[in-house]
Amino acid sequence: MERDVIMREVGLRDGIQGYHEFMPTEDKLKWIRAEAEAGMPEIEVTSYVPPKLLPQFADAETVTRESLKIDGLTVAALIPNEKGAQRGFALGVHKLNFVMSVSETHNQKNVRRTREASLEEFKNIVKQAKELPAGRRPIICGGLATALGCSYEGAIDVSEVQRWASYLLEAGADELIIPDTVGYAAPALVKKVYTAVLKEAGSVPVAAHFHDTRGTGLANLCAALESGVRHFDASLAGIGGCPFAPGASGNIVMEDAVYMLESMGVRTGIDIERLLKVREILSSSLPDLRLEGAIARAGLPRGFQPASIAA
Amino acid sequence: MERDVIMREVGLRDGIQGYHEFMPTEDKLKWIRAEAEAGMPEIEVTSYVPPKLLPQFADAETVTRESLKIDGLTVAALIPNEKGAQRGFALGVHKLNFVMSVSETHNQKNVRRTREASLEEFKNIVKQAKELPAGRRPIICGGLATALGCSYEGAIDVSEVQRWASYLLEAGADELIIPDTVGYAAPALVKKVYTAVLKEAGSVPVAAHFHDTRGTGLANLCAALESGVRHFDASLAGIGGCPFAPGASGNIVMEDAVYMLESMGVRTGIDIERLLKVREILSSSLPDLRLEGAIARAGLPRGFQPASIAA
Repeated sequence: MERDVIMREVGLRDGIQGYHEFMPTEDKLKWIRAEAEAGMPEIEVTSYVPPKLLPQFADAETVTRESLKIDGLTVAALIPNEKGAQRGFALGVHKLNFVMSVSETHNQKNVRRTREASLEEFKNIVKQAKELPAGRRPIICGGLATALGCSYEGAIDVSEVQRWASYLLEAGADELIIPDTVGYAAPALVKKVYTAVLKEAGSVPVAAHFHDTRGTGLANLCAALESGVRHFDASLAGIGGCPFAPGASGNIVMEDAVYMLESMGVRTGIDIERLLKVREILSSSLPDLRLEGAIARAGLPRGFQPASIAA
Repeated sequence: MERDVIMREVGLRDGIQGYHEFMPTEDKLKWIRAEAEAGMPEIEVTSYVPPKLLPQFADAETVTRESLKIDGLTVAALIPNEKGAQRGFALGVHKLNFVMSVSETHNQKNVRRTREASLEEFKNIVKQAKELPAGRRPIICGGLATALGCSYEGAIDVSEVQRWASYLLEAGADELIIPDTVGYAAPALVKKVYTAVLKEAGSVPVAAHFHDTRGTGLANLCAALESGVRHFDASLAGIGGCPFAPGASGNIVMEDAVYMLESMGVRTGIDIERLLKVREILSSSLPDLRLEGAIARAGLPRGFQPASIAA
């Protein structure tokens, strides 16, 4: 399947991390398998945080091991620190996402340390990853939360984002993730920030991660696409939000993002009809979880022709 | 107040035309006055359809007369036909919006005649307007419903939109309105269609009108802005939808559109804080009407600086 962009499902991590109800492991795996079958190339399947902090991820080992059995799927996981990275190394997960904040205040509130200390930890993680045998070395992603604005500090200077991106790159990041953690961005800022970071990153991929808090999610996705971004996070039914960011709401809706991209001739490699059916797994497993989604509500346009042709 | 774009409130027409409950005339006027005070430059205040077809507009004369007393506000109204135009002429309304469909099927279902017959009617309306004394001659807008897709016919050829736009221009349209009646558009199509129509229109203004049926409303607005469009319809709280278009849902949310544009440095001349307060008039008048709006829910970003500086 040819793809012009790489979509990453983050619902299993960002989507359910703050939800009060535990999603049964078997349902998580059903969801992961069904999305992989619909053509999703990459899924952030869990987070290696201590279960006492986020009980939702008490089954991180099982979810990772079973996901790694799925042919062709890139299995990613969030890591809050070195200990989390070591769990990932032991499991042989494909990709580890480490996130620090550009905003000093947000970094302190989120992980109770300075940005410099977070950067040091990232360096250690990269160093340990490089010592692993070639076939077991995961891709290490460096994320910069609040890159498009912070609910404590307000606007964030583009030059600050560029500076911290350069530190992560110098530290050896294989990929960058630039999220609009609290949904402050509008398309003009998106273009500025991603253009700056892409320039810094050179051949290192840069992923965009938008929250649709203020209605601009898909407009921001378009702006990032126009800036040259080719990696996008989204969550099924738009579930989720950062529990440490007041006022943050869900991710952009994966189905709507895929619909928009496919309408524009941008191949995601995802079969949208099959993707829409995956919502049933979510709603039957967590019936009280609020599901968003314009396409699920309105249906595809008459005569809709996706850019990706189903295999 | 300097403006880079002209926003037009269509909630009083498109927003409530299909709603079962009559909005008291005094509440409509409160809404119109409050928006004008917030800096809204233009409002489509009513529709000159027979009240037996749409009882919501039984007070069209009063609403128009009172709106015309508001200093600096451009008062527009929808007209379904010549009779409606004559009501507008008699009232001295500033602008009349006549809408036909690019889709033959939609035109038949909507107004029970061919596109050619609709065009003839538009020509007659323009002719009659030109016979009015200079100071009482309204601006005549020609609209092309389903220009971005039709729920009966599916995709609409860009060349067809261009062709019918040229007919309206030849007939003497002072302005064009190009709506995504059923919310089928994604940004790539938006750019194609509006670029083509703007080229055809030359110095004649072209207004974009989006429905957020499939989540792409604000992304489409950005795409139209990038194509050169400077006139945008939207409705307070995103209310509305075309009663003749199955599956159509609300307009783009005015507050969210204004927020996004102002965030991007595009001056709407509208005070968003005052605009947000107008929602209270709507919710107290029609308490069962569903109000959308991301900014109303999430609030403005910390330190938000609009491009328009309140007078």
